[in-house]
Amino acid sequence: MAIITLTTDFGEKDHFVGAIKGSIYSELEDVKIVDISHAISPFNVLEAAYIIQNAYNSFPKGSIHLIGIDSELNPENKHIAVKLNDHYFICANNGIMSMICNEVTPEKIVEINIHDKIETNFPVLDVFVRVACHIARGGTLEVVGKIIPEIKPIKNLNPFVNEDKTQIIGSVIYIDNYGNVVTNIRRKFFELTQKGRFFEVSARSYKFKEIHKKYSDIVNYDMPEEDRQDEGRGLVVFNSSDYLEIAIYKSDLATVGSASSLMGLEMRDTVTVNFLK
Amino acid sequence: MAIITLTTDFGEKDHFVGAIKGSIYSELEDVKIVDISHAISPFNVLEAAYIIQNAYNSFPKGSIHLIGIDSELNPENKHIAVKLNDHYFICANNGIMSMICNEVTPEKIVEINIHDKIETNFPVLDVFVRVACHIARGGTLEVVGKIIPEIKPIKNLNPFVNEDKTQIIGSVIYIDNYGNVVTNIRRKFFELTQKGRFFEVSARSYKFKEIHKKYSDIVNYDMPEEDRQDEGRGLVVFNSSDYLEIAIYKSDLATVGSASSLMGLEMRDTVTVNFLK
Amino acid sequence: MAIITLTTDFGEKDHFVGAIKGSIYSELEDVKIVDISHAISPFNVLEAAYIIQNAYNSFPKGSIHLIGIDSELNPENKHIAVKLNDHYFICANNGIMSMICNEVTPEKIVEINIHDKIETNFPVLDVFVRVACHIARGGTLEVVGKIIPEIKPIKNLNPFVNEDKTQIIGSVIYIDNYGNVVTNIRRKFFELTQKGRFFEVSARSYKFKEIHKKYSDIVNYDMPEEDRQDEGRGLVVFNSSDYLEIAIYKSDLATVGSASSLMGLEMRDTVTVNFLK
Repeated sequence: MAIITLTTDFGEKDHFVGAIKGSIYSELEDVKIVDISHAISPFNVLEAAYIIQNAYNSFPKGSIHLIGIDSELNPENKHIAVKLNDHYFICANNGIMSMICNEVTPEKIVEINIHDKIETNFPVLDVFVRVACHIARGGTLEVVGKIIPEIKPIKNLNPFVNEDKTQIIGSVIYIDNYGNVVTNIRRKFFELTQKGRFFEVSARSYKFKEIHKKYSDIVNYDMPEEDRQDEGRGLVVFNSSDYLEIAIYKSDLATVGSASSLMGLEMRDTVTVNFLK
Repeated sequence: MAIITLTTDFGEKDHFVGAIKGSIYSELEDVKIVDISHAISPFNVLEAAYIIQNAYNSFPKGSIHLIGIDSELNPENKHIAVKLNDHYFICANNGIMSMICNEVTPEKIVEINIHDKIETNFPVLDVFVRVACHIARGGTLEVVGKIIPEIKPIKNLNPFVNEDKTQIIGSVIYIDNYGNVVTNIRRKFFELTQKGRFFEVSARSYKFKEIHKKYSDIVNYDMPEEDRQDEGRGLVVFNSSDYLEIAIYKSDLATVGSASSLMGLEMRDTVTVNFLK
Repeated sequence: MAIITLTTDFGEKDHFVGAIKGSIYSELEDVKIVDISHAISPFNVLEAAYIIQNAYNSFPKGSIHLIGIDSELNPENKHIAVKLNDHYFICANNGIMSMICNEVTPEKIVEINIHDKIETNFPVLDVFVRVACHIARGGTLEVVGKIIPEIKPIKNLNPFVNEDKTQIIGSVIYIDNYGNVVTNIRRKFFELTQKGRFFEVSARSYKFKEIHKKYSDIVNYDMPEEDRQDEGRGLVVFNSSDYLEIAIYKSDLATVGSASSLMGLEMRDTVTVNFLK
């Protein structure tokens, strides 16, 4: 049975997501529809790129990922379908796919060209759903689009390394549900640059000399529980997606605060790593 | 396989929606349950009416739509089941159905009368689910209720036209995830009244002389991208549901603001269209 | 077909829930995955305990409930699987199960011990999903863990009764989507202590001498609708889960306010019932 996932900035309240699901079930009876997220910040391509990159690969091969972010068709925003790693992606050509394509070379990219048959101002419903159902029925990408060589890139996707290789200059690409701050510095990139040297991670005026394996690594379990003061302490980990992340132990935006709120870190802010000789 | 959709004001956190799904699966193994929205503002019948109207028709014929908004049974709030356009709706008789029934005449309306067999203070779980499963198994409405001639209407559903047909007086009926402001003025009604005349849409002190086909129509793609200042500009469109909508191009409540926040437009506020002779 | 439910504090935005669903579908094709809630406040074990207790029993026997709250493995936080009332629960041993176990004795509890085969810092994805799929395929708990006699309890789960049985001292354990305030005083416990006496419920400076069967019981339907002033009035009910709840009639946090916001009642605040001789 085909799987179609949905990732949009449509929110949880409006009728858009419901209408899309109804429309898919009207075309295909035997299909599993899975929500990845509908709470992407409006038009935030970078957030969407991070979320789809870290979710898609858990799904079975052959899954179809429909991404509805900033997808109004206009002269600078075309629609594409991408086959990559035996998964299918349908979205606007606005950079959403560049984070995944940074790691895995696409097998095939087509620019969707079935629009002349469809009058719509809700292309996710009227175009993307049709393409998704076409693929779910075993159809090929060439039938719904013309092959193009590459996708549109996104800016500042990768961190920089200075000339004498003593510094990584990264930036914040995502802030998660716990207010933890995710940077674009991946573990593999970090380790290749580090070459075993000591280091210091800096974000605003905060400095960290250690990267933990998990959040609770900072807790001293030999100390009696009532004497510990770990909740609310800052730390750095490689998160479960292997990105360098600045976190607060047991953070909660509504109560103790979070890395984002307590340290004043926002999307696209700079985070650096300095290596000692 | 039967499809049961859910539209409620239960929110995303509480156990209510989970309990309803569990209860449906306990009665029916082969059923698809689809969330339309659980983020309706509490007791907001107008919001619910707009959402269900614009979502239901994408679903296959025969779908069953369970709507849990203000559904406590009391002398002034009875429960109904409606068959309309080959879809089934189960809800309280509080006006939710009046927006759909404004457009399509119901085939059958029953007032549900199985309550004497059920002691409950959670009627969506104990009454609506039972009725939905009854319909899903092919049961008729007459078995669960007695036929009534009409539903309870909602106030201010339709816009007014002044006597000399120079003005439409509409109002805000929905504010969407992007903060865009949806009025009760539909395209067909607008065009019938307009008769080709020039016009001006007014909302508070804001005036618009054009209605666009899509949001990005206001962008001048001949101008270099870095010189454009379209993000954050106000515009008027007929939205994907054909309602006149006041929008901000690429709005985001959390950053650039939205039509609702920037223009101070709220639910039930007046929006007028003046036609020039 | 197996049913796996999900209850987490992962929120609606991040990729975590999508990744978990993809991972389950990669292991099992024929399975129903049902969201109970992903909007638990971060690390809030008490909220999670209340939600899972009131949702699980609506699901068919044999359902598998995966609960991802504060589930990082560390010396003080082990992973368990529990069989109870013919349902299965997979979670951290941090008190989440104590509300359910307070009412129903578990048939079997195991401490999960498959971690040595799994390197992970996302145990819900890599451990809980594996255990859930094992159970869904008919596997036994003994294969994935060793039997332990009891779970870790939670504090202040039950209300107190004073020595001369004239007072119940309860506390707030949940605040729902409508801002209604749920206490740990259950109907059965109340009635056993009350023994038919008159009573007064006190929360901060608010006093109530009656417990209603449903919210709209406070409305006088003999009075003309335009003269009534019931919306926004405080009342006490036993809610649909039979917990004593302090509510506001037709509350909405965003407009008229709620019991929580208007009376200043927060999680763990005291609510007392005084019985008159």
